[in-house]
Amino acid sequence: MILTVTLNTALDITYRVPALRPGASHRVTEVSERPGGKGVNVARVLAALGHEVTVTGFTGGLTGRLLRERLTAIPGLTDALLPVSGTTRRTVAVVDERSGTTTQLNEPGPAVSPAEWQAFQEVYEDLLKGVSAVALCGSLPPGVPVGAYAGLVRTARAAKVPVLLDTSGSPLRRGIAGRPDILKPNAEELAELTGSHEPLRATQDARRRGASTVVASLGAGGLLALTPDGNWRATPPSRLRGNPTGAGDSTVAGLLSGLVERLPWPDRLTRAVALSAATVLSPTAGDFDRTAYEELRSRVVVAAEASAA
Amino acid sequence: MILTVTLNTALDITYRVPALRPGASHRVTEVSERPGGKGVNVARVLAALGHEVTVTGFTGGLTGRLLRERLTAIPGLTDALLPVSGTTRRTVAVVDERSGTTTQLNEPGPAVSPAEWQAFQEVYEDLLKGVSAVALCGSLPPGVPVGAYAGLVRTARAAKVPVLLDTSGSPLRRGIAGRPDILKPNAEELAELTGSHEPLRATQDARRRGASTVVASLGAGGLLALTPDGNWRATPPSRLRGNPTGAGDSTVAGLLSGLVERLPWPDRLTRAVALSAATVLSPTAGDFDRTAYEELRSRVVVAAEASAA
Repeated sequence: MILTVTLNTALDITYRVPALRPGASHRVTEVSERPGGKGVNVARVLAALGHEVTVTGFTGGLTGRLLRERLTAIPGLTDALLPVSGTTRRTVAVVDERSGTTTQLNEPGPAVSPAEWQAFQEVYEDLLKGVSAVALCGSLPPGVPVGAYAGLVRTARAAKVPVLLDTSGSPLRRGIAGRPDILKPNAEELAELTGSHEPLRATQDARRRGASTVVASLGAGGLLALTPDGNWRATPPSRLRGNPTGAGDSTVAGLLSGLVERLPWPDRLTRAVALSAATVLSPTAGDFDRTAYEELRSRVVVAAEASAA
Repeated sequence: MILTVTLNTALDITYRVPALRPGASHRVTEVSERPGGKGVNVARVLAALGHEVTVTGFTGGLTGRLLRERLTAIPGLTDALLPVSGTTRRTVAVVDERSGTTTQLNEPGPAVSPAEWQAFQEVYEDLLKGVSAVALCGSLPPGVPVGAYAGLVRTARAAKVPVLLDTSGSPLRRGIAGRPDILKPNAEELAELTGSHEPLRATQDARRRGASTVVASLGAGGLLALTPDGNWRATPPSRLRGNPTGAGDSTVAGLLSGLVERLPWPDRLTRAVALSAATVLSPTAGDFDRTAYEELRSRVVVAAEASAA
């Protein structure tokens, strides 16, 4: 059993419009909805890979009810979300059919009370007893302290459960102090954390700040992994055209599944890159194309990487 | 009691963002929600003016439940919405705080079955028995026949209930054949209906197509009314700066309340223009500023209008 934590779950709404023009009125031609938030997306990919996954975090209101209904329909996925008095946020992705670009509008999320945050920490500690790995993913809703992830990382480490952290901004800066086993920043998050736009240097800096392993996702540049067992760079076979939404979450699912299956690092990275690429290629945002995934696995290139000075 | 019909009710969501940039990701700084759809907006203004109003149309799903909860909280308003198996649509208005412009995204609405449409027509006929006027407002959800409004207009006329029609496109073109007592198109709808961009000529043409009275709303140009009792033009005192969302619905509320109070046409038009202008000036989209309304009533200019050739 793998546990994913999504403190700021979301109902992800996608609108397709012929062309988005600021200031104009648009008739939406297609509406789709699905449960979201990074940890929920990671869980969906893990479940599709055949893993048993428990989803926890906060949910509330009618949006939360809709999210839970959709979530329990996914085989292999257990809902351990904690109800809060606020309402789960929506995110709206507006896809411009002419240009193919997506404009994203994210609500901030429900205000979480100190009592709700306290209750979550207790539930989380209980859930850790039965799991082989945990991923802490995404933004924090209002009311949850900015140092939340550092505490959750420490609780996992005390329970001897390997813990992966995937967040940004201050929650990342503060969370890394808890010494997560794996940190998965993208290039932008790495630069914001370390001040360096040079990926290898920034990844090394992130490791020095407390993460045992840092796997940086560099978009078309693939993954750069600095681990206690060695350093690797894994790259997809070619530049991919498609929708990058959810590609980072598929990377996390690849790393976690490889961890619990005790795959060697190069195999974990191959899986993570292939899953991420197959997500970009999928016609549905956030899903991965299974045929592309199987085909890409044999074409990902993993090379040992020397440390920088 | 006044009846308003909103076949395609909506949950109106407003997002404020610092600046809307197509292709970018935005953190929404403020979220607000309220019951919507043109007839619902008209009802809210009528209730604020002290009238008893019944709201009917279709509603369904969790969005519909949320809409009904909000609706019943409004004093003076009776909920006679018919439940359908589909889900009430959302509309999303994205307000760019830098430029002040609003970008509108409207979902199409639930698919209404033939049985649901039949059931509505029966409920509607019953509701007409106790009302002094009815307004038919807005777009049609999928599944409702494009000639729907013509039938609803005829049913109202058979019941001797004055009927106002406010819609656009094909539902307007077809609905006018039912011979509504009042038609309230805006300049764009008039031009689409008649092919003429000259307001007086287009308004006369719209009357010839079947409406007893046509009140054209011409934005800053105020209202042009061609009625069996005479022709008038009513103009606001000056060009207004603000949010025009809901100004047309306030116009309809002004016309309807004036009708049931048996005000002479110039007084009805004065009220409608002042309400519409006070809606543009209100900080909350779709609400009207009561102080501005009272002040504007004395400053609207109504002048007799000669017929065109």
